[in-house]
Amino acid sequence: MAQKKLGKQTVVLENPPSIISTASIVGPKEGDGPLKDYFDLILDDDLWGEDSWEKCESKIQQEAVKLALSKAKMVPSQVDYLFSGDLLNQIISSSYAARQLKIPFFGLYGACSTKTESLSLGAIAIDGGFADNVVCVTSSHFSTAERQYRFPLEHGNQRPLTAQWTVTGAGASVLSSSGNGPYITHITTGRIIDPGISNANNMGPAMAPAAADTIVQHFRDTGLKPENYDMIITGDLATVGKEIAEELIAKEGYDVSEIFMDCGIEIFDSERQDTHAGGSGCGCSAVVFTGYLYKALKSGKYRRIMLVSTGALLSPTIIQQGESIPGIAHAVTISSEK
Amino acid sequence: MAQKKLGKQTVVLENPPSIISTASIVGPKEGDGPLKDYFDLILDDDLWGEDSWEKCESKIQQEAVKLALSKAKMVPSQVDYLFSGDLLNQIISSSYAARQLKIPFFGLYGACSTKTESLSLGAIAIDGGFADNVVCVTSSHFSTAERQYRFPLEHGNQRPLTAQWTVTGAGASVLSSSGNGPYITHITTGRIIDPGISNANNMGPAMAPAAADTIVQHFRDTGLKPENYDMIITGDLATVGKEIAEELIAKEGYDVSEIFMDCGIEIFDSERQDTHAGGSGCGCSAVVFTGYLYKALKSGKYRRIMLVSTGALLSPTIIQQGESIPGIAHAVTISSEK
Repeated sequence: MAQKKLGKQTVVLENPPSIISTASIVGPKEGDGPLKDYFDLILDDDLWGEDSWEKCESKIQQEAVKLALSKAKMVPSQVDYLFSGDLLNQIISSSYAARQLKIPFFGLYGACSTKTESLSLGAIAIDGGFADNVVCVTSSHFSTAERQYRFPLEHGNQRPLTAQWTVTGAGASVLSSSGNGPYITHITTGRIIDPGISNANNMGPAMAPAAADTIVQHFRDTGLKPENYDMIITGDLATVGKEIAEELIAKEGYDVSEIFMDCGIEIFDSERQDTHAGGSGCGCSAVVFTGYLYKALKSGKYRRIMLVSTGALLSPTIIQQGESIPGIAHAVTISSEK
Repeated sequence: MAQKKLGKQTVVLENPPSIISTASIVGPKEGDGPLKDYFDLILDDDLWGEDSWEKCESKIQQEAVKLALSKAKMVPSQVDYLFSGDLLNQIISSSYAARQLKIPFFGLYGACSTKTESLSLGAIAIDGGFADNVVCVTSSHFSTAERQYRFPLEHGNQRPLTAQWTVTGAGASVLSSSGNGPYITHITTGRIIDPGISNANNMGPAMAPAAADTIVQHFRDTGLKPENYDMIITGDLATVGKEIAEELIAKEGYDVSEIFMDCGIEIFDSERQDTHAGGSGCGCSAVVFTGYLYKALKSGKYRRIMLVSTGALLSPTIIQQGESIPGIAHAVTISSEK
């Protein structure tokens, strides 16, 4: 029997897994942004000694895992499962990192929602009695994403103001059956909602209805209210999508305006750094969580947050065939108390 | 505590989930092969009324889920989670199918290993008390895969004898906390093993060491032996890879020769159908399991099998950058008894 299920889309963890360490590695632009003091490592360039951006992204992910494990005083062979994903075709950043780490590996794809997808499945594996230690990691890289999803960088196309800037970085979290928190206490898994947008430079609105749907469903399933949270933070709705999501949530009777933030807005100073609507990518909510939010939970600045990574399942192939971009959002509640 | 963990990479399910129904839909070539009598639906062509192969593949996956649910007398709203994946970039067959089904959705990517990846995570969700009913589905399509991974079909290139033929089809399984079996009793999750192969037309040898590693690890973790199984069946090693895997397993002291089969070999008559080394794709082990093997378990022909879907994490992008193809294999034990 699904004794941990609550309502339609939420589960409550019986023995909430503890996030015992995190690590974040970012590129130079992210390291020049408002959250620069919270990242573990800021790279000087976007290749890190590799001969391609893809190999650099895989290295960033791999090193983030190693750093998170070293902070937890662990080695890869002590990890039961690696849950990871990224934006690239065949999730190469993840699979080539997993090749080096030699940990039993579940590859995931949920576009930029993958960070909370990995935390959800990692927490389920531990709480279900299948694992004591898992690593959840996601990454993205501006240059690998631009050339795969939009235009070659050499093309120098103009970016509309709705465009978002893919974060270069990786965030790794070590989850454990023991530890002093913060804890993953609830998981609300999203459904796909597709508002019919097909513009790869306007992804916030493609994801906003999915984010609103998951957040509202979380409140309905659990009976929790916005005032039970210190913060609800979406992955990368950015300025355009955040406004839409907030309005959609308000329409359902929940006022989140006081506590609603977005990782894509926080990571860059959009005026000074010319990032337009904000940041995006599997690395965005990953580094904002593993860098800034995790430390704020550990220090007691926040006691309970809902992290809602948001994914626009954009595919150049099927957009060319006239389809629109489906959105999805997965929520996890992270709390300093069990 | 990970009380269900056994050895290094295996978990034993406490209340083994039952596979209460399956459905398989295949293309015309698969429907002309040796297993044709076991499939639920054989398509007349490879478009099924759609205007692209990608849309057809997504439809095949979606209809396989609906058919499996209807056999279980269920509707999508009764399903807690959908675990799905496919070979296409951004797993579009899965995400567009999930859009229609509106089930909370975890997107997976493990190349052709995704079928057992989905069964593993679906079984973990149920056994852990998070879900009562989940659907696990994967698909592939010859024409979508060829153009993404190899050459445009119009190019008419010659296929070497090591090449495999991507299966057009989808296989869906409904797992439940109640039911009369067959049951998923053990899960052995694979690590990535990369033997250094970079030829997209020679994938069996790229996957064979990973398959052998997972199978041998399963024996070591559980203490089970080849004679405890009626069949060990890999996903799509095909003729070239199967021979290598069998030899590698023998070197570790396990003689599986009497019971070792491969879905990629069984699905086609390679001589008559000109499929060279055999079938492949996320759909290959999916339709052989949901079509043939499931019925053989239900009828009592087999009592315990190990299904080991095998994935070659081939990426055209990073192969062009000089990298090789990592392999992975995930094993699930499926038994008529708990």
